[in-house]
Amino acid sequence: MTGIPVLRTSDNVRTLVDSWRGAGMRVGFVPTMGALHQGHLSLVSAALEQTDRVIVSIFVNPSQFGPEEDLDSYPRTFTRDLMKLEEAGAHGVFFPSETEIYPDGFSTSVHVSGLTENLCGKYRPGHFNGVATVCAVLFGIVHPDVAVFGRKDAQQLAVIRRMVKDLRLDVDILAADIFREPDGLAMSSRNSYLSPDERKQAAVIFGGLSKAVEMVSKGERHTEPICIAVREFISRAALAEIQYLEIVDINTMKPVDMLTTPGLLAIAVYFGKTRLIDNVILKP
Amino acid sequence: MTGIPVLRTSDNVRTLVDSWRGAGMRVGFVPTMGALHQGHLSLVSAALEQTDRVIVSIFVNPSQFGPEEDLDSYPRTFTRDLMKLEEAGAHGVFFPSETEIYPDGFSTSVHVSGLTENLCGKYRPGHFNGVATVCAVLFGIVHPDVAVFGRKDAQQLAVIRRMVKDLRLDVDILAADIFREPDGLAMSSRNSYLSPDERKQAAVIFGGLSKAVEMVSKGERHTEPICIAVREFISRAALAEIQYLEIVDINTMKPVDMLTTPGLLAIAVYFGKTRLIDNVILKP
Repeated sequence: MTGIPVLRTSDNVRTLVDSWRGAGMRVGFVPTMGALHQGHLSLVSAALEQTDRVIVSIFVNPSQFGPEEDLDSYPRTFTRDLMKLEEAGAHGVFFPSETEIYPDGFSTSVHVSGLTENLCGKYRPGHFNGVATVCAVLFGIVHPDVAVFGRKDAQQLAVIRRMVKDLRLDVDILAADIFREPDGLAMSSRNSYLSPDERKQAAVIFGGLSKAVEMVSKGERHTEPICIAVREFISRAALAEIQYLEIVDINTMKPVDMLTTPGLLAIAVYFGKTRLIDNVILKP
Repeated sequence: MTGIPVLRTSDNVRTLVDSWRGAGMRVGFVPTMGALHQGHLSLVSAALEQTDRVIVSIFVNPSQFGPEEDLDSYPRTFTRDLMKLEEAGAHGVFFPSETEIYPDGFSTSVHVSGLTENLCGKYRPGHFNGVATVCAVLFGIVHPDVAVFGRKDAQQLAVIRRMVKDLRLDVDILAADIFREPDGLAMSSRNSYLSPDERKQAAVIFGGLSKAVEMVSKGERHTEPICIAVREFISRAALAEIQYLEIVDINTMKPVDMLTTPGLLAIAVYFGKTRLIDNVILKP
């Protein structure tokens, strides 16, 4: 058994957070869907650097999965997650039921337009409405001073930042860098779906991103040749099937032709049925 | 000149509200679109009863008007509004520009489904998204303890309550009763659009609502005969054109056949180009 408090209700979270805040402490928050890996734990570390107490939520949010997506098979590893969080130094785990987050009669959704038309938003209709809504609800329950999101989900990060700014939510959003396996594959709960062959070939994504960084460092500013080269690089992996590969403005998520300011090279690649995303910021 | 502080920016509002809260005071909030009448002032009074300081916002919110609606002609009477608010005892007026509420790049909207499919929501597509979004923004700026809404906009009240509950916003929503002219016409900024003949005939709406209350008090529980009688009553006014007339559940806003619990009789009636709404709760 672990000693980290597990809170099942919003009231319990609020009581704990209010007691911390009453003692003058700053509260950090890391929303997750569980199946925790070192990437998540690095978010906890980032939160610990900025705040005195850190709450991690574990909630596989149905409203951000499409009807054909992997809601049912999404990995659930709660006991291991708890041990990892205790070791990482988190101070509480919010592990709500679905009806705790979406009680009977729940009818509200938060939409962020523009930013969500491209990249993942194009291929996962409704996904970012689900993400924005659950984050608004979680922020409303937890009332954190700081919430930490990973840069791997770059479009999600942009959506959350936009929502927080637009709705004047009282929370600072902190972005944490992508945490990678030794071969460069970005950590993801979905990496567990990969077969050994797929896993081995998946390192090609980071290879492609690195190729782009190299081209920019050598002076390339046009995005089209970079995209062509990265696509060519990734396509060498027989099991890789690219869903999208684009260079976009890091704030608006709209495609750019020339790198006059930093651009985001964002990729989604299928290996079999497993969809992986990754990205890198290209600084001219 | 009036002495009530007029705040043009969110920062100024927050500074003022934070100073009040720092002094242990509770803060009330009344969002309006200006063109204030006694109905609005009764909301200020209701806020003053529950809180120590009251902020009123005056913002004609473009996003809650349809393309064919009266955004441009909506009455603007700021100087008179200020005098009325000072007399009513309000402590501050938030009078933002459009870009203060919706700065460049604003992309977020709040949607409340279900509740908004019927009544005004059916005839004013997008209206309640605009209302919910601007209220979420205003609550985010003002951070009130209590916000007051009139019962005349019954569907709006239900939408705001639902949003606050779903997004766990930290504000108590207080409903204030409908304030009526001596002949029963509900106060509305849009009453100023009525010609003398239309104004005279508009009292028929309250007559129709009173007819329904009378039928229920005499034992009628079926909603169909009530609706028929009210429709017949209002149609006696030659200038009245009913847009909708329905009895709905006060929480879900869905039509009901029998009054087993209190129902809301809600009406929208055109007099010429002027659309008026009104309602009454029918208690079996």
